[in-house]
Amino acid sequence: MPTISEKGMHMPPSPIRKLVPYAEAARKRGVHIYHLNIGQPDIPTPEVMLNAIRGIDLKVVEYSHSAGIESYRRKLAGYYQKNRIMVDWQDIIVTTGGSEAIEIGMMSCLNPGDEIIVPEPFYANYNGFSTQAGVIVKPIPSSIETGFALPPIEEFEKAITPRTKAILICNPSNPTGYLYTRAELETLKSIVIKHDLFLFSDEVYREFCYDGHEYVSVLHLDGLDQHVVLMDSISKRYSACGARIGALISKNKEVMAAALKFAQARLSPPTFGQIAAEAAIDTPQSYFDEVIHEYVARRDFVVDALNRMEGVYCPKPSGAFYCMAQLPVDDTDTFCQWLLESFSHHDQTVMLAPGSGFYSRPELGKRQVRIAYVLSLDSLRKAMECLEMALKHYPGRLPMARGLATEVEA
Amino acid sequence: MPTISEKGMHMPPSPIRKLVPYAEAARKRGVHIYHLNIGQPDIPTPEVMLNAIRGIDLKVVEYSHSAGIESYRRKLAGYYQKNRIMVDWQDIIVTTGGSEAIEIGMMSCLNPGDEIIVPEPFYANYNGFSTQAGVIVKPIPSSIETGFALPPIEEFEKAITPRTKAILICNPSNPTGYLYTRAELETLKSIVIKHDLFLFSDEVYREFCYDGHEYVSVLHLDGLDQHVVLMDSISKRYSACGARIGALISKNKEVMAAALKFAQARLSPPTFGQIAAEAAIDTPQSYFDEVIHEYVARRDFVVDALNRMEGVYCPKPSGAFYCMAQLPVDDTDTFCQWLLESFSHHDQTVMLAPGSGFYSRPELGKRQVRIAYVLSLDSLRKAMECLEMALKHYPGRLPMARGLATEVEA
Repeated sequence: MPTISEKGMHMPPSPIRKLVPYAEAARKRGVHIYHLNIGQPDIPTPEVMLNAIRGIDLKVVEYSHSAGIESYRRKLAGYYQKNRIMVDWQDIIVTTGGSEAIEIGMMSCLNPGDEIIVPEPFYANYNGFSTQAGVIVKPIPSSIETGFALPPIEEFEKAITPRTKAILICNPSNPTGYLYTRAELETLKSIVIKHDLFLFSDEVYREFCYDGHEYVSVLHLDGLDQHVVLMDSISKRYSACGARIGALISKNKEVMAAALKFAQARLSPPTFGQIAAEAAIDTPQSYFDEVIHEYVARRDFVVDALNRMEGVYCPKPSGAFYCMAQLPVDDTDTFCQWLLESFSHHDQTVMLAPGSGFYSRPELGKRQVRIAYVLSLDSLRKAMECLEMALKHYPGRLPMARGLATEVEA
Repeated sequence: MPTISEKGMHMPPSPIRKLVPYAEAARKRGVHIYHLNIGQPDIPTPEVMLNAIRGIDLKVVEYSHSAGIESYRRKLAGYYQKNRIMVDWQDIIVTTGGSEAIEIGMMSCLNPGDEIIVPEPFYANYNGFSTQAGVIVKPIPSSIETGFALPPIEEFEKAITPRTKAILICNPSNPTGYLYTRAELETLKSIVIKHDLFLFSDEVYREFCYDGHEYVSVLHLDGLDQHVVLMDSISKRYSACGARIGALISKNKEVMAAALKFAQARLSPPTFGQIAAEAAIDTPQSYFDEVIHEYVARRDFVVDALNRMEGVYCPKPSGAFYCMAQLPVDDTDTFCQWLLESFSHHDQTVMLAPGSGFYSRPELGKRQVRIAYVLSLDSLRKAMECLEMALKHYPGRLPMARGLATEVEA
C-alpha cells in the first residue's frame, strides 16, 4: 500500500472540529449542546442575498472569470472604497472563501521554508495553510493580561531571520476579538518597510467593531501598497459562511499576476455564491446596526458572566465575535472533551474550542478556551450556567485560583 | 518591494485562458467568436438543479460539514453504486470542483519532489496543480496516430524512478477524448501494484462515452482499492461548471483521513452548489440520452469536417467532448492568436486551444489544437467554415501536407 505524504501526516486536524465526534455522541444521548466552539453565527443571512438566489434565471451554470464576475468585482471595489480602502476592481480576485485567499496569498508570496510571523493566539487554520504551503509559522505571543494587544516591536525584531518573508495579522482578531489601534498598525508598518516584508491582513471581521473604536485597515496606511495582501470574506459580514466567497486584494501587480495563475488553475469561484455576494452589497445599514447591537449585548453578557465565575478571567474584546477566557482547569482540551463526554446540566452542555489549537505551541493555550458568542442571549445565558456548573464539578479543576501570569507561563 | 514566490513565478498561466485578451479585442472590433477553446458546454443545466436553488428556504447560509452535506454524500454514494463503483458515503469528500479534488489528492499523497507519471497530452491544469504541490510531472507521450491510446507499458517502466509515487489518468480524456479500454486499465493496474503507486483517475466525463463503448472505472478493477484516488466533478455531467462541486473518492482510509484535514482547513465546500448537486442526482435518464445524442452528432460533424480539410488530421474520439486535431501550420500558438487578431470570415472567427498547453514539453503540441465541441451544430458548421478558410489564408501554413509522423516529431 503506498504511503501518504508527509504533509498529509503533519497537517493539523481542525481544533475547532476535532471534538465533533464527542458532540455527536452527546447528541445521541439526548444532550442539547450550545455551540460556542465555532464562528457560525445564528444571524439571518440578508434577504437581498437569498432573494437573488431564489430569483436566479440562468440556463447554464457557467464558469465565471477566474478572478470573479466582473460586475461583482466592480461593486465590491465600491464597497471597499466606502470603507476608505481605495482599491480598483482589478486589485481584487474573488476567492472561494477567505480560506482560499489565504492559500493563494501564501503560495504567491512565500517559498517552502520561508517564515511568516504571526502574533499568537491566532486563527487555527493558519497552521494548516502554512503546512500546505511548506511555510514556517514563527509565533510571537500576545498576552491575555494585555487583552492580546500587539506584542512589543522588540519581539518582532527578535523573530526576524533571513527567511522571514511576511507578517500575518487578523484584525479584528479571531480568536481574541482584539482590535488593533492605528498606533499598533503604524508600528507594524515600520517593521514591514524596514525588513521589506509582506503584510498579510485578514480583515473578515471589519464590520464587527464595538464601543466606537475606529476600524483601521492596513490599506488605510500610506506607503504600504506594495507590501499589503488583504484577505477578506463575506462569510461573517453577511452571515453567509456557506456561500464560500472571499477576496484577495493587493495593489502589488506582481502578487496579483501570480495569484491569478493560481486562480486560473482552479478555474473559478462559485457562481451561485458570487450572485448572492453581489446582491449582498445592497444590504441596508440597518441590518448591520441591528447585528452590531446584538453582538455588543452578547459580548457584554458573556464577558461579564465569565469574569464573575471563580477563577475565570476574560478580557473584554472590541471586535469580532470571539473572546478568549482563562479557566481554572488542568487542561482545556481535556475539559472541553469532558464537557461533551461526561457532563450535562438539565440535559444540556456547552461546546468550546480549546485554546491549544490557537497557538503554535499548544501548551500556551492549555488554560484557555475560545468562546464564539454567536447564539442568542437566551442560549448564551443557559450556556454560561452550564459552564459555571461544569467548572464546579470538573475533576481536573485547579485546587485554587492562581495568579494570571503563573497560569499563562505554566 | 518584497518579491513573489518561485511558485508564483513558475506557475503556468492557463493555456486555455491566455488568449482571452485577443478575444476581447476581436469582440470589440465586432467580430463574432465561436468558442471551441474551453470545455464550457452550452447544454442547459437540468431543471431539477435550478429549481432546488430557486426553492432554497435557508435562513442562515451555514458552513456544511468539511466533507460535505451528509445527505448529499449518501445520495452521491448511490449514484456511484449505480455506476458499479462500490463506495460508501464515507469514502467520499465533497470538494470545491474537481480542481480541489486534484489539489487535495496531490497534497495528501505526494511530497514535494515526488514524481507523478501522466500520459500526455493531458489536462493543462495538471501542470498547475503539480507546481502548487511541488510535484514533478513525468510525461509519457501518447500519439495522435494511435488516437492517443495508453502508451506501451515499457514507457511507464522506463519513466519509473525511486521518486515515482503515482500515475494520473483522465478517462474519458480531456483533451483527447480517448476512452481507456479494460485491457489498458488492467495494464495500468499491473504497473501500479508492481511499483506500489497511487493511481489517480480523473473521471469527470464518465457519462460521455459513445458508440456503445464500455466505460470502465479504475474502481471497477479488483485489488486496487488501496491505490486508487478518484477525482470527480458535477461540472460536465450536469453542465454546471459554475456550481464548483466535485468529489475526492478513495477506499484508502489513510488517504481519506489526510484529505479530510486539508478539507477542514478550508472549512467547507459551497452550500448552494451542494444543494443543487444533491437535487441533480434525480436528473432523469432522458436528459443524458438527449445530451449524448447531441454530442455524438457534434463529434461526428466536427471530426468529419476536420478530416476533410487539406492537411488536417483528427482521430475520432469515443468519449468526453474534445478532440485533438493536427493542423498544417507552423505553430498553433501563433495560429490561434492570428485567428483572433488578424482573421475574420463574414465577421466571424474561431477560438481554439493551442496544443502546446496540454504537453509537458510544449513543442510536442506545436501542430495540434484541442477543439471542444460544446456549441450547437449550426455554430460548429460556421466555426469549421471559418477554420477551413483561415487555414487557406494563414501565412504560416506549411507548404505541403507532410506525413503524420514527421509532423509529430518535428
